[in-house]
Amino acid sequence: MSRILTLNSGSSSIKFSVYAAGDAPARMAEGQVDRLGSDAAALTLKWQGTRTTAQIGQVDHRGGLQAILDALRPVLAGAEVAGVGHRIVHGGPRFDAPALLDDDTLTYLEGFEAFAPLHQPHNLAAVRGARLAFPAAVQLGCFDTAFHRGHPWVNDTFALPRSFYDEGVRRYGFHGLSYAYIAGELARLDPGAAQGRTVVAHLGNGASMCALHDGKSVDSTMGFSALEGLAMGTRCGQLDPGVMLYLLQQRGMTPEAVSDLLYKQSGLKGLSGLSNDMRELEAADTEAAREAIAYFVSRIRRELGAMAAVLGGLDTVVFTGGIGENSAQVRAQACAGMDWLGITLDATANAQAAHVISTGPVTVRVIPTDEELVIARAVNARIDG
Amino acid sequence: MSRILTLNSGSSSIKFSVYAAGDAPARMAEGQVDRLGSDAAALTLKWQGTRTTAQIGQVDHRGGLQAILDALRPVLAGAEVAGVGHRIVHGGPRFDAPALLDDDTLTYLEGFEAFAPLHQPHNLAAVRGARLAFPAAVQLGCFDTAFHRGHPWVNDTFALPRSFYDEGVRRYGFHGLSYAYIAGELARLDPGAAQGRTVVAHLGNGASMCALHDGKSVDSTMGFSALEGLAMGTRCGQLDPGVMLYLLQQRGMTPEAVSDLLYKQSGLKGLSGLSNDMRELEAADTEAAREAIAYFVSRIRRELGAMAAVLGGLDTVVFTGGIGENSAQVRAQACAGMDWLGITLDATANAQAAHVISTGPVTVRVIPTDEELVIARAVNARIDG
Repeated sequence: MSRILTLNSGSSSIKFSVYAAGDAPARMAEGQVDRLGSDAAALTLKWQGTRTTAQIGQVDHRGGLQAILDALRPVLAGAEVAGVGHRIVHGGPRFDAPALLDDDTLTYLEGFEAFAPLHQPHNLAAVRGARLAFPAAVQLGCFDTAFHRGHPWVNDTFALPRSFYDEGVRRYGFHGLSYAYIAGELARLDPGAAQGRTVVAHLGNGASMCALHDGKSVDSTMGFSALEGLAMGTRCGQLDPGVMLYLLQQRGMTPEAVSDLLYKQSGLKGLSGLSNDMRELEAADTEAAREAIAYFVSRIRRELGAMAAVLGGLDTVVFTGGIGENSAQVRAQACAGMDWLGITLDATANAQAAHVISTGPVTVRVIPTDEELVIARAVNARIDG
Repeated sequence: MSRILTLNSGSSSIKFSVYAAGDAPARMAEGQVDRLGSDAAALTLKWQGTRTTAQIGQVDHRGGLQAILDALRPVLAGAEVAGVGHRIVHGGPRFDAPALLDDDTLTYLEGFEAFAPLHQPHNLAAVRGARLAFPAAVQLGCFDTAFHRGHPWVNDTFALPRSFYDEGVRRYGFHGLSYAYIAGELARLDPGAAQGRTVVAHLGNGASMCALHDGKSVDSTMGFSALEGLAMGTRCGQLDPGVMLYLLQQRGMTPEAVSDLLYKQSGLKGLSGLSNDMRELEAADTEAAREAIAYFVSRIRRELGAMAAVLGGLDTVVFTGGIGENSAQVRAQACAGMDWLGITLDATANAQAAHVISTGPVTVRVIPTDEELVIARAVNARIDG
């Protein structure tokens, strides 16, 4: 019995899933450790219909991975882990597809730690841990940037001196595993439409949008970092560079304080003064909560128009991610008055989060995403070979 | 004989014009001092069909203004300067129209020097100099931000904690005098269309776009500073905040070095490695020059789609500013493949920079802008009263 393990290491958490290997990998167990580095680190495991949570003391990422391996012992009993799939935020300019994590590749990926300092070092630490734990297994890196590597140059660069592009300051785009999953689903659900012009809105605690032409990414609202584009739970999204200069030069803030502000205190949380969670904001019924949602939606609408311009019009819009899949209000506000673009929602279908929620010439869909499955499929393709 | 003087002080230059007062102010003379602060400061005056340039030694803004007043003595002989109109970059949240520059107003405007450190102090220094030189004249401030003050809140804020909005970190928008002129011209040329949905592209060495509904600004690509939005001659335009954090934290650049990079080394100049001047790039015929133009155009196209989304569709597009008025290539590339939006250019009309250059349902116009005339008209309205 062959098993696939997927790992997704964040700054203070590690998510994992176990799949039975096969052409359609089946998830057997999933869970996460979170609050790593605090004294309240905990491991949650969902397996055989039961959800258990255990405190694991004050451990770092290495300890967190060990706790996962311990917890998975009964899950993996009598089976072999044939492959481990790692979600890695940054594949650099080189990788437009998953890559085997040999020493050379790991060295290359370490070169991008400075580009994603909150994620890349933890991603790579998990790779090293998994190589020790499963020395015979395939170790595969699946990159959030890879799906976007085919962008035309104008959507890959900033208007900085060329040397910055050459050193890697580019619009990489992220959430690529989600977009790859959606592109695959769209091709399955409507092969004709999948060849056309699609905008996918991945709206979760992180949020971005992607323009697809014939299933390939041509533009993304995220660029160099996970800060850019749409407003997010606690991140600012699009921001005038002059604001940062003001904060630094006039207000005397340190770069570290600005980073904390933009990553952790902004977005829905900053505007609402209440929460980074769309469900709480929708339930709150305060003016500030309504305004925070209105801002979030207004940036989606702006980028929808911008991506239609990149694509030369629209055939399909897909909502996905926690907010995209679950908030009928956000979907309705994002699409209101978009008839000029061919978008008309069916209010009932939208309220039910039906597969298709539109009546106009542009088909609007709700498709739940599954990034882990994209990883598991990629690993399965390698262990089969 | 009543005269109006307009002044526009930049970081190293002061532009000026002299108008005969009247319902349609007529420009009698114009010119500028430039390279202030260097030992090559010079004054250029165009008057009675003659253009003269004189070196004025190493002078600062105060000396530059004095040189202007000296040079204007024959121009103003026998006439009275009834009003001085000052182009002032920042009117803060308070001013949505020109304002008399009394002591209270000057104090208020000084409060925004930190928001526009490269321009506001020089603008206000010129006001003080002009009050001394023409103590009996009306002194009127005309603000680049005023035209945009009616933006809906979602187009006026960033997704930062509320306290930043309250202290003035907002999307002010600039080039407002140009947009006010264009809105007036559009109302004169086609009153019906002027009530509709218009996007104006002000493309000069600085560049921005403005969405107008019924002649009023509802959105702009520039926000807090003159860095945001479109790429410009030497400015970056839209930039991922994460790039700035990378430059500061990983590359160890100082905020001053980042400011210099983004204001002076980026944009067309940075991408082309050649020039900030569109005419030079169009003539250059190098790959890098073509790519720089392609990037410049791609951001215009993106923002055109975004603003159509803000407006709920489009009726009119106006090109103005040095590039907008003179580059048929930029206009053609910006509008290519925009049929889905209702835009189809007439190639011949575009090559001739005709008043109307489109054949599709969206009317595309070229309208030369005249920011000084907007100032002169505003001053004239006050000295008449």
